[in-house]
Formats: sequence, structure tokens, C-alpha cells
Amino acid sequence: MSNIELPLLLPESKLKRIVIAGGGFGGLQLCKELRGQNYEVVLIDRHNYHTFQPLLYQVATAGLEPDSIAYPFRKLFKHYPNFYFRLAEIEKIDHQQNSIVTDIGILEYDILILATGSTTNFYGIEGVKKYAFPMKTIPQALDLRSIILQNFEQALPITNELLLNEQINVVIVGGGPTGVEMSGALGELKNNVFPIDYPEIDLSMMQVYLVEAGERLLSGMSKQASAKALKYLEDFGINVMRSSSVKDFDGKTVLLSDGKTLSAKTLIWAAGVKGNIPEGLPEQQVTKTSRLKVDRYCKVQEFENIFAIGDLAYMEEEKYPGGHPMVAPVAIQQANFLIKHFNRLKNNSKTTPFCYKDKGKMATIGRNKAVVDMKGFKFQGIFAWFVWMFVHLMSLVGFRNRVVVLIDWFYNYISYDQALRLIIRPFKRR
Amino acid sequence: MSNIELPLLLPESKLKRIVIAGGGFGGLQLCKELRGQNYEVVLIDRHNYHTFQPLLYQVATAGLEPDSIAYPFRKLFKHYPNFYFRLAEIEKIDHQQNSIVTDIGILEYDILILATGSTTNFYGIEGVKKYAFPMKTIPQALDLRSIILQNFEQALPITNELLLNEQINVVIVGGGPTGVEMSGALGELKNNVFPIDYPEIDLSMMQVYLVEAGERLLSGMSKQASAKALKYLEDFGINVMRSSSVKDFDGKTVLLSDGKTLSAKTLIWAAGVKGNIPEGLPEQQVTKTSRLKVDRYCKVQEFENIFAIGDLAYMEEEKYPGGHPMVAPVAIQQANFLIKHFNRLKNNSKTTPFCYKDKGKMATIGRNKAVVDMKGFKFQGIFAWFVWMFVHLMSLVGFRNRVVVLIDWFYNYISYDQALRLIIRPFKRR
Repeated sequence: MSNIELPLLLPESKLKRIVIAGGGFGGLQLCKELRGQNYEVVLIDRHNYHTFQPLLYQVATAGLEPDSIAYPFRKLFKHYPNFYFRLAEIEKIDHQQNSIVTDIGILEYDILILATGSTTNFYGIEGVKKYAFPMKTIPQALDLRSIILQNFEQALPITNELLLNEQINVVIVGGGPTGVEMSGALGELKNNVFPIDYPEIDLSMMQVYLVEAGERLLSGMSKQASAKALKYLEDFGINVMRSSSVKDFDGKTVLLSDGKTLSAKTLIWAAGVKGNIPEGLPEQQVTKTSRLKVDRYCKVQEFENIFAIGDLAYMEEEKYPGGHPMVAPVAIQQANFLIKHFNRLKNNSKTTPFCYKDKGKMATIGRNKAVVDMKGFKFQGIFAWFVWMFVHLMSLVGFRNRVVVLIDWFYNYISYDQALRLIIRPFKRR
Repeated sequence: MSNIELPLLLPESKLKRIVIAGGGFGGLQLCKELRGQNYEVVLIDRHNYHTFQPLLYQVATAGLEPDSIAYPFRKLFKHYPNFYFRLAEIEKIDHQQNSIVTDIGILEYDILILATGSTTNFYGIEGVKKYAFPMKTIPQALDLRSIILQNFEQALPITNELLLNEQINVVIVGGGPTGVEMSGALGELKNNVFPIDYPEIDLSMMQVYLVEAGERLLSGMSKQASAKALKYLEDFGINVMRSSSVKDFDGKTVLLSDGKTLSAKTLIWAAGVKGNIPEGLPEQQVTKTSRLKVDRYCKVQEFENIFAIGDLAYMEEEKYPGGHPMVAPVAIQQANFLIKHFNRLKNNSKTTPFCYKDKGKMATIGRNKAVVDMKGFKFQGIFAWFVWMFVHLMSLVGFRNRVVVLIDWFYNYISYDQALRLIIRPFKRR
């Protein structure tokens, strides 16, 4: 189909138009910083809402409803002057025409800021790609919630021990924050909820495995945090397998690098991500991990008016020779930096390159159990857990969402019960 | 496939086994009343949760999250002695074998109580069946939420007025409580939310039609209530078309009985229900509206051990010569009656036939606007609205759900804003 047939998504603007591709943490911050500035701002995203990804695992484990970690863009940016949102899928960047081709039309830009984030990296393992559950979007988290519950419902008539193992075991791959938090939440379901919901099933037949390729969990955090996370998970009864990786998966059996196998129909893939790069950009600007090379001012090399921030952007800083970690604070800081940088350029002020300020890292394992590394001090346990909760609650978008999440957490805490065990849309296994 | 190949869903029981088919209002009440009695109780349902149907329309219009009007059966009935739940689809009743054939196996019963409720009645209009949106389940309500929002997102590039009408108009068929409440909620979205979310669209191009075959809305209520509901809806700008019915629909144009047409891609069908009768029962016991004939003791004629309650059951009482209205209170009262009846039979006490006690009816149209008919007095307006909210809040299952719904309502009330405008799973039009 020729581009000429596609409609323009917006008429020409008198103001300089900044198009922001992607409404994750970085894209959202860009929109906020650009409020009231002398630009036309267009946000384009394939969802009509922002997803608070750090809590996806709680949706997948029936602790939170999806609607509380999502926030509609149009509600967020209502009354913003010269702001437009377009729900569309990017098909390619046509940098020669300064335009984006989407599934619903063409969008022209003066400045393009790519904040399309990252997508699951299956490292080319076909069986994993076909059968594993990723957890990067709300529909994926809901599929996981459904399948974890369906596994148990369908396990009831199974009398063969091996088949029962296969049916209710869960293997989580990747010992970063997502894998560790998901393992902890599954451990709580296994210990506190499933024995009451399914008294007919012997819960000792369910094994939860956490497979991590490296020597320690939470490799981005301190050794102290890693050791404590390992202890917490083992106390929960999680089988943590370090220095081990997945070679293949056929939907029933997981083949590990050392030749051992694990029986499980449910494999949760939290082992890695790669940059979510739109088509149409020169290949020489893409790294091996699918990130887009940018200079210290978030500018994509070769272009004058295309920028990238967040997970997608590969920037080499002295302290981060292999690029920044793919986490929300980098995206948010880059968003703040970039808009400040634009204003400095406009005012002919002195510009300074981006520097990431790491304010700390944290992960939670379960009730009263979290690990926190902050500049200068590291702590674990109940206080860390309260800090984790407070930080996540405050980072959530919208007052209503904060209140409902707080109620859910309070309820879960006093009742030892993840209440939202609903199979709203049953998942059909491939 | 021969039945012999199918597994038994439960081993033989020493206790007398009561199987309850369907966990709606009636089925739920049966389970509660049977708690601790000398039976084995098995609940079978195709969802793993109870749906609070009266609030489905608020899920469809972004006012409530689905998780707050659903409640997992296993959570509800945990710690109930001799209680079992099976997530299964009923394929047929094999009354000669005293068993139910389901998609996952055979379930034998001593006593069978059918509480499978009702399903949407399209009255054989193929176009409506193919293209209209029913609203009897949570996934259906979520599909509606998605399509109403998708309609607007996709309307943005449309410049032709007729095509724009077709894209954003909504036709609701059926002037009972569901149709009236849905119309009111859509009116609020149109008046308060969409003008702010979509400043690019001229909202005067959106028409909401409510089509009712009879002379008045809410025909089950008083004339006073009907008149007030009509006035409220017309104040909202809803086009109420009485004495009019739908003859056909091709996905774009609604053909009415008088030959007129309405342009709309979105048709919500709340025009009628019919009994949801499992296969395998003798045809002579089924009425023209697909309800199952029962005697005054909820017993299905011809059988000694099959009973039916609620929407499914057709019982002729002096005051209700055409059967009871298909509403929750009938189902709940029949559940209470039936278990009491069983106990009377066991104790050789005197049994009396079922009599429905109508405690009143109500419907809401929007903020501060509701109509209530109660024995002796009828009222409308803000007090009726508070009564409506209180009754629905108290009828919801679960403390957490009540708290979250209350917060949502409070938030909606102060902000004039239905907050959950999320297209989680986009709906693909046929």
C-alpha cells in the first residue's frame, strides 16, 4: 500500500511538533515536562493507558486488579494545551519525510522522541517463544493469572503423580527483580492460598523453580541483598537454581543447560529484554541487544531531530560503559534532562551531557520481606518492605489507584489472601 | 465419544450428594443454606467466580473495575465442610443415570438443583445475534467497554458526518432496568467525560438511542417510575423511542419495525433473556420462553430428584400466572424455600408451596437520579438514588469489593468522571 493513501493523523501545526513514541515512564515524563511549553505535543502508544510495570507481577498473582496499575492517557493529559494522543501501532519511521507510518495513518514530526521501551528477549529459543509466558503488558499478566488458576482447576481429576507435577509446577526464568518478586508471590499463593482453595490437591506436589543464569539473584544489587533474597525465597520453599539456564522448552518439559530437565507446563520468562526498536532506522545505530545508540544528549546518531530515551536508548557514560540499566529512573531522568536540554539550546545556554544519578534499588519477596540498597546504606526485612511499599504507592499514577492499591495491600496483609483469583478470560494453551 | 471414557469428577460419596448447577444469586444462596447440613454439596459453574450482574453496566461504562463485581467461589466457600466446586461446562443431563455430562467428566447426583439462569434472547434475528453486544457476563461487559472507547479513538480521522455518526452512535435495545441504566451511564459519559477526552470530536454528532417495544420504560415498575425515568433520560439527551422494535441489523444500520433506520455500528442488546436450559431434559417441560416447568415446590415435573430455581424455573403462582419475573430476589427466595422444604420433608413436617414476596423494584439513571417502587410508597430522585446505592452495596459479595466500589462511586461522584477508560483487550469487530 502506498503511503499516499494513508490519512494524516493530524493537520499541519503552526507550532513546532514534538512526537513522543511510547507512554511508559519516560514518555509520560516528557509529556508532563512539555506542558505549557511552546510546542505541539503528540503522544502515540499502542495502548490507551500507561502501565505501571513494577506491579504487573501482583496482577499475575491475583493480588491487584489490572485497572489499578493502568491509567488512561487522555485522563492524565486532559486540559493540557496543544496536546494530542493517538492510539496507534508504529509500523516504521520514515526519517527522510520526517514522519511515522502507523497502522491508522501518517504522523509528521519536527522532533521525534522515541520512548518505545523494551520487549521480551527470548534469545532465539523457539520453544520458549512459543510456549513461555512473558510479563511485560497487562493482557500478558492477566493471561498468567488465568493459567495459574486454570492449572489447578484442571489438576483436580489428575491422579498420576508425574502428570500432576507437570500440571501445577511453575518455572520462573530470570533472577532479576521481576523473577524474584514473581517467585515470592507464587510462594505465598502456594503456602497460604492454594492449600485452602484446593484441599483436594496435595500441595507438596507443586514445585516452584527460579532459574538464574548468573551466580547470584538480583545481580544489579549488593551481595548482601542477593544473599537475603535467596534466603527469603528458600524459606518460602522456592527451588532456586543458580548458574543454570534454559536451553529449550516443549510446553511440558524444561531443558536446562546442564542437561537436567524440569517438568512444568507453565514457564514464566523474565530472563531478559531487548530494545523495542521501530523499523526504518539505520542498522549501524542498533546494538547487539537491540538498543539504539544515542549521544550524551539522547540524540540518535546521524539525525538532527530524532532522540531516544529509556530502555530503548543505548548511551555510554563513564560510569556505565555498557549502557545504563533498563529501569524506570533512567527513563524519567533522561526525559527531564532532554526537555531542559531543548530549553538550554533555545536560550543559547551552556549544555551539559546527561549523567544518571542512581538513587538506589529495591525488590520485595513477600510480606515483611524486601531488600533495599540505597546510597550509603543497605537494609532488608520489614522496614525495607515498608519502604518498598511506600515508594511504589507514591509512584503509582492517580489518587484513586493509590487508594485502591493501598486497600488491596492492607486486605492481603491482614487476611494472608490474594483475593482476585478470577479466570475472567480463560487462556487457551497453544 | 462414549461416556465411559470420561472420568468421574468426584468419587462416590457416603453422604447424599446435591449438585447445584450454576453459581448465580440462586446457586450461591443454596450453597450458603446447605452449609453444615448432612449433604455433600457440589457447585458446578463455567466461571470460577460469582458475577454481580446488576452492576455489569458500570463495568461496561468504565465506572467500576470487573474484579470488584466478581467473587471467586473457592474463596467464598472455603472451610465449608463437604463442599466441592467444579469449573466445568454442562453438556447434558443424563437423568436416567442420575448424572451430568460436562466437558471435563461425569458428575453423579442424588439431587440435582438447576440454577443455570438465563441467557440473551435474540428472538431469532440473525443480524442482531451476529453484530449486537449482549451484556450478561463480565467478558461481554469488558468487550463493550473496549468498543465504546475504540469507537472514539477510531473516529478521530473521520471527516464525513454520516460516517462519524455511524462510528460513535450507540443504540440500546430494551427499556428494562439494564437498558435504562446503560442509557443513563452512556449519557453521563457523553455529557461529562467524552467532551474532555475528545475535544477534537464534536459531541453533538453522537446520538444515544434507547429503543423499547412497549409503551413505557421499566414496564415492571409503576407508571410514576416509568414517567420519571423517561424524563431523566430525555434530560440527558437520550433519544427514547417507545413502541418501536428492532427488525434487523447489519453491523452499521439498525432497521426498526416501522421501517425507519438508525445509523450505528454499536448496538447493545438488552431486549430480553430466555432460560439457559441444559440439554437432555424432556421437551414437554420447556416453555416457549425456554424456561423449565416446575411445580410449586421447585420440582421439575416428571422427575423426583431434579429441581430448578431462579430465571430458569417457570412456576405458575396465582399472583404470577405467566411465571415469576426473572430477577435475583425470586432466585434467592426459591433457594431459601427449597432447602427449608427439604428439611420439612426429612422431618415429616407440613410443607407449604412457594410464594414470592415482592419487596420492591428500583433502577438508577445517573447521579442523584433513581426510581424506587416499594410496597406502599414510591419515590424518585436523590433519596431514591441513595437507597439504590445502599441496597446494591450491601448486596455485593465480599467486604473488599464493597469498599472498592464505594471508593469508585465516591470518586465518580466528586469528579464527574468514570475513571477506568481502559482498552485492556481491544475488541475485534466481526
